Amino acid sequence: MKKIIAAPLCLCAAVAMAQKPSEYNLDGKLYPQINEDRSVTFQFSAPSARSVTLNLGRDYGMTKGERGMWTVTTDPQVVGFHYYSLKIGGLGVIDPAGQTFYGTSKYSSAIEVPENESDAAFYTPRKDVPQGAVRSVRFHSDVCNEWRRMYVYTPAGYYDDPDRRYPVLYLQHGGGEDETGWIFQGRADVIMDNLIAEGKAEPMIIVMNSGYASNPGSSDSFDAFEKMMTEEVIPFIDGRYRTIADREHRAAAGLSWGAKQAYDLALGYPELFSAAGGFSGIIVVGEFNVHNPGIMDKTQRKAAYNGIFKDVKKFNKDYSLLFISTGQAEGTLLKEMSRTLKKDGIKNTYFESKDTAHEWLTWRRSLYNYAQLLFKK
Amino acid sequence: MKKIIAAPLCLCAAVAMAQKPSEYNLDGKLYPQINEDRSVTFQFSAPSARSVTLNLGRDYGMTKGERGMWTVTTDPQVVGFHYYSLKIGGLGVIDPAGQTFYGTSKYSSAIEVPENESDAAFYTPRKDVPQGAVRSVRFHSDVCNEWRRMYVYTPAGYYDDPDRRYPVLYLQHGGGEDETGWIFQGRADVIMDNLIAEGKAEPMIIVMNSGYASNPGSSDSFDAFEKMMTEEVIPFIDGRYRTIADREHRAAAGLSWGAKQAYDLALGYPELFSAAGGFSGIIVVGEFNVHNPGIMDKTQRKAAYNGIFKDVKKFNKDYSLLFISTGQAEGTLLKEMSRTLKKDGIKNTYFESKDTAHEWLTWRRSLYNYAQLLFKK
Repeated sequence: MKKIIAAPLCLCAAVAMAQKPSEYNLDGKLYPQINEDRSVTFQFSAPSARSVTLNLGRDYGMTKGERGMWTVTTDPQVVGFHYYSLKIGGLGVIDPAGQTFYGTSKYSSAIEVPENESDAAFYTPRKDVPQGAVRSVRFHSDVCNEWRRMYVYTPAGYYDDPDRRYPVLYLQHGGGEDETGWIFQGRADVIMDNLIAEGKAEPMIIVMNSGYASNPGSSDSFDAFEKMMTEEVIPFIDGRYRTIADREHRAAAGLSWGAKQAYDLALGYPELFSAAGGFSGIIVVGEFNVHNPGIMDKTQRKAAYNGIFKDVKKFNKDYSLLFISTGQAEGTLLKEMSRTLKKDGIKNTYFESKDTAHEWLTWRRSLYNYAQLLFKK
Repeated sequence: MKKIIAAPLCLCAAVAMAQKPSEYNLDGKLYPQINEDRSVTFQFSAPSARSVTLNLGRDYGMTKGERGMWTVTTDPQVVGFHYYSLKIGGLGVIDPAGQTFYGTSKYSSAIEVPENESDAAFYTPRKDVPQGAVRSVRFHSDVCNEWRRMYVYTPAGYYDDPDRRYPVLYLQHGGGEDETGWIFQGRADVIMDNLIAEGKAEPMIIVMNSGYASNPGSSDSFDAFEKMMTEEVIPFIDGRYRTIADREHRAAAGLSWGAKQAYDLALGYPELFSAAGGFSGIIVVGEFNVHNPGIMDKTQRKAAYNGIFKDVKKFNKDYSLLFISTGQAEGTLLKEMSRTLKKDGIKNTYFESKDTAHEWLTWRRSLYNYAQLLFKK
């Protein structure tokens, strides 16, 4: 009898699950909706528009229905965080129904295609987990001659023991994103809270800066970023937080475009850093273009970063971690880079995110794996 | 001779000042531009659009020029922070050239029409001023059955003396905004840093929550908000920060719609609060509509908040501050409310923001004035 009563209830639950508003929708907004097969249904009211196109990975033409409501259902999507945009007559617009995230060099719409609960647990807040703090910190950069903002994560318990000092990870976003990316898209704070609570990662401070930096009157440059980070940000953080201010307790990591910046810091300043992480980003040697073999060429590799890879023994002794990761759907380049370095004798850890591409789920998983190896002798 | 050389230089400076990209434009975006007379010039590329309208206070039709570039220059604007929107063929869109702010119940475009430097100094960061911290804090509300985020400001020096305890201001945004408003639009952290550095305000903790709260399955309600604040947020803050956890050291303030919420807390829970601030918001008695005289009616006033205004002597003894403010361009309603309460004998402080309307500059100035009077016996 119980079973018969239960059956329609289960059905209701299944129906309720089958179509679900995206978690980034504003209060009361029903669309976009994530369907059970991971396709996404979009609705957008534009009575006077002659064409509306959705871009989610690829373009989808939307169909006009009653009262100027345009609609489309996409192909099934891979799980994770994806930017999307709408085009009205060729013009890109932000969906007014949802939260915006700074990405693709502007404020962008996005959806989260949920994983199953157990896979998503590592970046899901839990009531029983003590929470670290994320602070928005203004600082004036003389290098860039501007006020800038960084995000600083301090682990739970940071204020319980005023004598305890912590290692620091400098963590960079990707191209077209900014210092907010690792918190809002990446959920770095939740990932770290959970890892630390489970004893899987060392409690650490994480410092997130915008990778865009320029000398006054110039364009953004990697040089200005490096100068700002090494001459201003690191001393600022060491002066203001209870850090262990030596190379053994300082690491850099970054994703995509920010992976290059992390390598520039960690491999370019061995006196400051002892660990590097590059998520979905190659170590750039010389000018990066398709005709330059770069890191895959032994001669260039030996010349990279003032010859950091030349003395294999010294590198393996000096660097506690070189972590290389990629999404499985991104291809084999980074796997090959890891292998090539290993063949040279350069110790490194390779991580591949199952089924994901050049996207935030790859990088959440990368941080999750990287952080567990960091600052452990 | 010197003067003759100086003249063209001055001219250059004047020209450079004459048109200036809005400070919220993304890197490299030249429009919107603020002109010297405080009019604003917008440009927006939409080659296939048949009409583009700008709304900044009122609608302005934009004119199509070469290569589908639409342009318009508005009337001179009052100084301060203003939301704006673009309409393409009647459809509201967010300007992709700029930062977005949560306001008007969605992520919105905005400009800041700058004041002169000395008037703007109180909300401008200064290198010589020690900086408090703004943290983004997640917490789980059982009342709402959801994870929520609040912003918590702790003053500079909070971590220098582990025994010092601080008073707390609960500060609410306006309708259609959220917990980010007081930081990103209001610059509350900068205002407080500057005030505290100058010795003009007591160092205090400021807690900013989203005013939208609902019991599971219900719509947003003031009741759910009150319950969440008094039963969950206040104990959470008192448990986690070094507060002085008594009514004498707890205040509430809010703007517009949030002013009602601040009054609901501060006047509705005299056992918890001893000071109230309402910026551009009336004390609501009974149902708020144009036919209800509400607070202006003596009988209703005496009944408000369980008769809090009945015993004038007790009120004046119990409440250290009742602060009422408005923008000069908002009309005389709040001035009249202040006068009416004063006629009853209810002590209150009235502040009027010169030349401003129902907008963030009114509220920045209100906080600046309110905070100086708060927690001072």
